[in-house]
Amino acid sequence: MKFLHTSDWHLGRQFHNVSLIEDQDVVLQQIVNYVRQHPVDAIVVAGDIYDRSVPPTQAILLLNRVLTELCQTLNTPVIMIPGNHDGAARLGFGAEQMRASGLNIISDFAQMLEPVIVTTEDAGEVAFYGMPYSDPEQVRHELQVAVSTHDEAHQHLCQLITEKFDMSQRHVLISHCFVDGAMESESERPLSIGGADRVNHQHFLPFDYVALGHLHQPQFKGAEHIRYSGSLMKYSFSEQHQKKGMYLVELNHDGFVASTFIPLQAPHEMRIIEGELHTIIANAKDDPRRDDYLLVRLTDTHAILDPMDKLRSVYPNVLHLEKPGMLIGVDQEMRSQRLKRSEFDMFKDFFQETHQAPLTSAQEQAVIEVIQALKQGEEQ
Amino acid sequence: MKFLHTSDWHLGRQFHNVSLIEDQDVVLQQIVNYVRQHPVDAIVVAGDIYDRSVPPTQAILLLNRVLTELCQTLNTPVIMIPGNHDGAARLGFGAEQMRASGLNIISDFAQMLEPVIVTTEDAGEVAFYGMPYSDPEQVRHELQVAVSTHDEAHQHLCQLITEKFDMSQRHVLISHCFVDGAMESESERPLSIGGADRVNHQHFLPFDYVALGHLHQPQFKGAEHIRYSGSLMKYSFSEQHQKKGMYLVELNHDGFVASTFIPLQAPHEMRIIEGELHTIIANAKDDPRRDDYLLVRLTDTHAILDPMDKLRSVYPNVLHLEKPGMLIGVDQEMRSQRLKRSEFDMFKDFFQETHQAPLTSAQEQAVIEVIQALKQGEEQ
Repeated sequence: MKFLHTSDWHLGRQFHNVSLIEDQDVVLQQIVNYVRQHPVDAIVVAGDIYDRSVPPTQAILLLNRVLTELCQTLNTPVIMIPGNHDGAARLGFGAEQMRASGLNIISDFAQMLEPVIVTTEDAGEVAFYGMPYSDPEQVRHELQVAVSTHDEAHQHLCQLITEKFDMSQRHVLISHCFVDGAMESESERPLSIGGADRVNHQHFLPFDYVALGHLHQPQFKGAEHIRYSGSLMKYSFSEQHQKKGMYLVELNHDGFVASTFIPLQAPHEMRIIEGELHTIIANAKDDPRRDDYLLVRLTDTHAILDPMDKLRSVYPNVLHLEKPGMLIGVDQEMRSQRLKRSEFDMFKDFFQETHQAPLTSAQEQAVIEVIQALKQGEEQ
Repeated sequence: MKFLHTSDWHLGRQFHNVSLIEDQDVVLQQIVNYVRQHPVDAIVVAGDIYDRSVPPTQAILLLNRVLTELCQTLNTPVIMIPGNHDGAARLGFGAEQMRASGLNIISDFAQMLEPVIVTTEDAGEVAFYGMPYSDPEQVRHELQVAVSTHDEAHQHLCQLITEKFDMSQRHVLISHCFVDGAMESESERPLSIGGADRVNHQHFLPFDYVALGHLHQPQFKGAEHIRYSGSLMKYSFSEQHQKKGMYLVELNHDGFVASTFIPLQAPHEMRIIEGELHTIIANAKDDPRRDDYLLVRLTDTHAILDPMDKLRSVYPNVLHLEKPGMLIGVDQEMRSQRLKRSEFDMFKDFFQETHQAPLTSAQEQAVIEVIQALKQGEEQ
């Protein structure tokens, strides 16, 4: 039995005020095409389907189209859970009615305990348990159990599921959480402050495979079969060197066999280019990917007129410009300006404080002359 | 064959800052109970399911629960269209996947031309065509046809459907529009300004039944089988005398047989009470429906201290207070000479309210003198 593990689609995301919906469409079409060419028994999406709980209409239309291609046209069951970015109730509307058509959106704890069973010859019955994203407060409130951390919450939820295990089946868990020790990326939204969101991977060991979502870098943690697929595409410049894709997971009657990374290629990469303006522009003509989304970090230390316009004439999708070299210059300038102007002001304040009277205009004139004389002395 | 025709649920509506979701829940449960006791072959909801395109989570949860009871528990197909209040794309998410479970949300023109077929012994195949709410701009844009009014748009859409008629079937249309000559209520949102939204009922004549939504008063227009069910409940005080409910529609092999109005009872009615404050309060003790949502129109012509508090001590759900009597008083005062008379009148009312006794003539004299003294002071 083979299934695809993907997550963190974040449909509807904006990046530096640019809508990524068309890029997301292209990458999702790669998933559809993959399934068309290499049929699989199921597709798992481990949360953060949308980028926010009330997604834009375009994102809804895109997801609807992709799911209809996967479930109806390609007749492949899809199993998904909401992540911390999704609105579980909103995403879960009609879930009961969708199940018969192979679209399984698991958005509450009752559904969590009713696994989606996919049966194949080589692996028998595989039970997919979806754990909708939930913070400790929700688990405490909805299940009336005393848990105060994400770790305790996940331990409890895993226990509820493993108690229901039918040992003639294989067991796959889908969860959206932060496994302790795994690598973060910049584009994730923290689940809680100060590390209280970390979950021990030990809770997941009883499963044959754990399809994780939340962290945007593909990786496994604790064991080969406890794995993040990473996000659909790069969602921050700091991910420029990450590979994005999905896992093809193979199970047999004995459980986990292998996972294979299937790369997905966004139409625009996210890259950081660093250097002096004239060098960057001169090198652009040999750059085969001039349409990429760019962060340009200019190292020039002199002021440049309209650097964004100049860059966009060769790189149309420069989304952000940093000028660390020039910032140093500006900073120095501000410091000196502040001093020059403030010496007179400070003396005026000092005089007022000590004499309980303002400077007369003759005194003011005298002070200004003294300061100017001192300045000239400094400069010589 | 019997089916229910309902519309204009407006789930998530607020009324004078009060959420109606619990009332809507109670009324929807009456529909579920009706179907449990009197099984029907289908349930039609003719648009304005939600009150706005991005409904609150509570409304989504309620609709989800009701549809699951109808489609899954009671195994009754539901056929719905978006109205002008709904977001068609948002409401239509997963529609393809829901069809197999009997939940039919028809939210685009392609789906409009694929009728939902319900087959019974006494009527044979009945084809339900859902026409998602659409203004002329949408029809023009999506179907590339030169229509400029709602009437032309509906004529065109009806023609597209009737061209597809299988004459061995009965044909039901579900549409959300304003049929020319039908009666408006205050709680509807106009589809366009100045009457350009009116649709001629003639376009609908070829159908065996037309289940209409948009107008909130139950009524038929043009022919017995072209009918508005009206809204789920009252959504304005001006609807206080309207009956709210749904239609049980019967068809046989020859088409339309009958429609029967099934009343639905909201837990709080919306009523207008008019009279003097003391009369209203005195009569309240014999009022069996003191929890109703009330608009109170006070006819008193003198000022009253805290009338809302006084009314709410007997009618807890007074949502709006009108004081036409006092407005006329103020108006007259303003039109006649200044405030000399009214200041005294107002003080007299105030004294009566706070002391539960009128001014003595000595007190009256004193107040008049004080006011005169103040006036003279002002004029100097």
